[in-house]
Amino acid sequence: MSSQAAHPTLLIPGPIEFDDAVLQSMSHFSESHVGPGFVATFGETLSMLRKLFQTTDPAAQPFVLSGSGTLGWDLVAANLIEAGEDVLVLGTGYFSDGFADCLRVYGANVTELKAPVGTKPQLPEIEKALSEKRYKAITVTHVDTSTGVLSELKQLSALVHKVSPDTLIIVDGVCSVACEEIDFDAWGLDGVVTASQKAIGCPAGLSISMFSGRAMKAVQNRKTPPAAYFASMKNWTPIMQNYEAKKPSYFATPSPQLIHALHTALSQILTKPVPERFAAHKAGSDKIKKAIADLGLKQVAANPDEQAHGMTAIYLPEGVKGADLLPILAKKGVVFAGGIHKEIAAKYIRFGHMGVSLLDPKRTDIEHAVKSLEEGLAECGYKKP
Amino acid sequence: MSSQAAHPTLLIPGPIEFDDAVLQSMSHFSESHVGPGFVATFGETLSMLRKLFQTTDPAAQPFVLSGSGTLGWDLVAANLIEAGEDVLVLGTGYFSDGFADCLRVYGANVTELKAPVGTKPQLPEIEKALSEKRYKAITVTHVDTSTGVLSELKQLSALVHKVSPDTLIIVDGVCSVACEEIDFDAWGLDGVVTASQKAIGCPAGLSISMFSGRAMKAVQNRKTPPAAYFASMKNWTPIMQNYEAKKPSYFATPSPQLIHALHTALSQILTKPVPERFAAHKAGSDKIKKAIADLGLKQVAANPDEQAHGMTAIYLPEGVKGADLLPILAKKGVVFAGGIHKEIAAKYIRFGHMGVSLLDPKRTDIEHAVKSLEEGLAECGYKKP
Repeated sequence: MSSQAAHPTLLIPGPIEFDDAVLQSMSHFSESHVGPGFVATFGETLSMLRKLFQTTDPAAQPFVLSGSGTLGWDLVAANLIEAGEDVLVLGTGYFSDGFADCLRVYGANVTELKAPVGTKPQLPEIEKALSEKRYKAITVTHVDTSTGVLSELKQLSALVHKVSPDTLIIVDGVCSVACEEIDFDAWGLDGVVTASQKAIGCPAGLSISMFSGRAMKAVQNRKTPPAAYFASMKNWTPIMQNYEAKKPSYFATPSPQLIHALHTALSQILTKPVPERFAAHKAGSDKIKKAIADLGLKQVAANPDEQAHGMTAIYLPEGVKGADLLPILAKKGVVFAGGIHKEIAAKYIRFGHMGVSLLDPKRTDIEHAVKSLEEGLAECGYKKP
Repeated sequence: MSSQAAHPTLLIPGPIEFDDAVLQSMSHFSESHVGPGFVATFGETLSMLRKLFQTTDPAAQPFVLSGSGTLGWDLVAANLIEAGEDVLVLGTGYFSDGFADCLRVYGANVTELKAPVGTKPQLPEIEKALSEKRYKAITVTHVDTSTGVLSELKQLSALVHKVSPDTLIIVDGVCSVACEEIDFDAWGLDGVVTASQKAIGCPAGLSISMFSGRAMKAVQNRKTPPAAYFASMKNWTPIMQNYEAKKPSYFATPSPQLIHALHTALSQILTKPVPERFAAHKAGSDKIKKAIADLGLKQVAANPDEQAHGMTAIYLPEGVKGADLLPILAKKGVVFAGGIHKEIAAKYIRFGHMGVSLLDPKRTDIEHAVKSLEEGLAECGYKKP
């Protein structure tokens, strides 16, 4: 039986559908985590991440740890921030709230600049906030998976560098890395944390991150020890550097199978320049958003400039319940996700369109999903305008 | 190409060789982490863990998180212990030192009762230590992977319950769960933390643990909030309980592929009563240890009562270097591990014999390894007595 046996197409905002070769890498035979074969695989994987993030700065440091994407928040909160330091969190929804909670657990003094559901904080209010207090870091959820709101990073980082140049710029890129443009060096980002199972296209189980030389210095210059052990960047930095230099070393056992799958996924991504990948996601997303509008449906992210390109959060029409529509779609072989933002959870659904489902010309996942959505809504009694 | 393409046999003390069906589960098609299919798989996996740990106490709580085995130390240190509380760590080597380091990071006041290399602290000195101070917890590394020293748990836990009944008994079972006897309820253990890639026989990437009702109460009754976010048992407890009740819920995305592989591995383990599995490891280990002695070699764990049954740490004969022997063995298709205990690292090697390599009657991994060791030593100039 093929691992890709007939199954409903997973079009939630992560995990996504995976390429066959990536899934086959998951069943790689067992290797020592410190043997030369695996050390080379892991080392190449780390080097490929630099290309994905478009960084050539040797001081920048990639990390790949066993864990969920959420572990990236702990990396930031326990290593870059010390208890009592101020952090400005740009509030876009469920996931920025989670990042704020995590920062507080490790003692950060968090100021949340919250925007109404479906929008993001705007530059003038961010500038005002930055001028009122000296923040150690600002965090931005690049795509808030709860709303599909995209936060623009280029102008934001330019603003932070101008108004508060010592403030570290930290990006939650869980739902953006490998589908939204991220130019790590050019924009002067200090940290991007993400996960394997979204646009990178590797099964869940890896926390993936990139930190700038400046962020690494902040870790080195802490006045207090890191506030975590497994999530300690001090413990992992020499290990990551050794793997990338193809030298064995050990702090905790990585997952050879997941690293092999990530190696395969990154190798596939890097067959083309990454800007082409971002453009393809944008073009595909534009088509999907037009189809959604043609169905008479509205997005949670109302402003076209604030709409993610790897997912779409769609308000349900009056009278249609997600609890009715989602099972109908599942029967048609399309798995969408329900709402997760607590203010509007029952009122919308989420359609993920990252990776092979969108990019592989042999797949008709997206067309089938749009058609199924139209049919499913009709079965729920909805008449499109 | 089969995932099990010809490859050197991995006989280090974890990761181990994996069964074909387990590896095939790693490439399971993508599923939603909150969809009914995966929720059922995860729920059954948690229920099977109860059987592996031999607990029927409904208050006991299993956890399966994305992470390395090391994350289990953070679970204990950040949830069961509060800053300033006293913990007694039984010192058996590299891994008990690591657990102590982790406890200190989260503020525990650690007393280490260190035994000389190749031995473990003895009951009378443990009794003395317990009578001198009120310890919140005692930690024991069931098998210290650095030395192959086995710590007996039944008499130890009886002693703790008698002398210091309020002290939580925490076991690092990374190199013992599924190959050494663990009778969670009968022995009154409060926590066992382990990983997927050793005797359980599932690829690395999962932190697996079981905590008693008493330990769960200690978490609930904390005076301070848990000291970690991703490793917070408060965040994960409702999620684990929901999965086991076959209800979807979300804190951070688990790895469906790894959970599928763990489900397959546990299903295989539970086809027989677990005491039979422990007995088979003991019988196989006895044979290996006899062969080692017949070669004129000594174990790091000198006392037969203190020798692990899933691995053997073997002193190299005078004049033979691990750096010479290990590559010779690798050429013969046998991967052993080098030493890791800093006092003796260059003087010994480690032979892992857990799971399918030992148990599957179709495999000749162990016989081939013993024969290769004999030949390899001879090629290094060693003459057996």
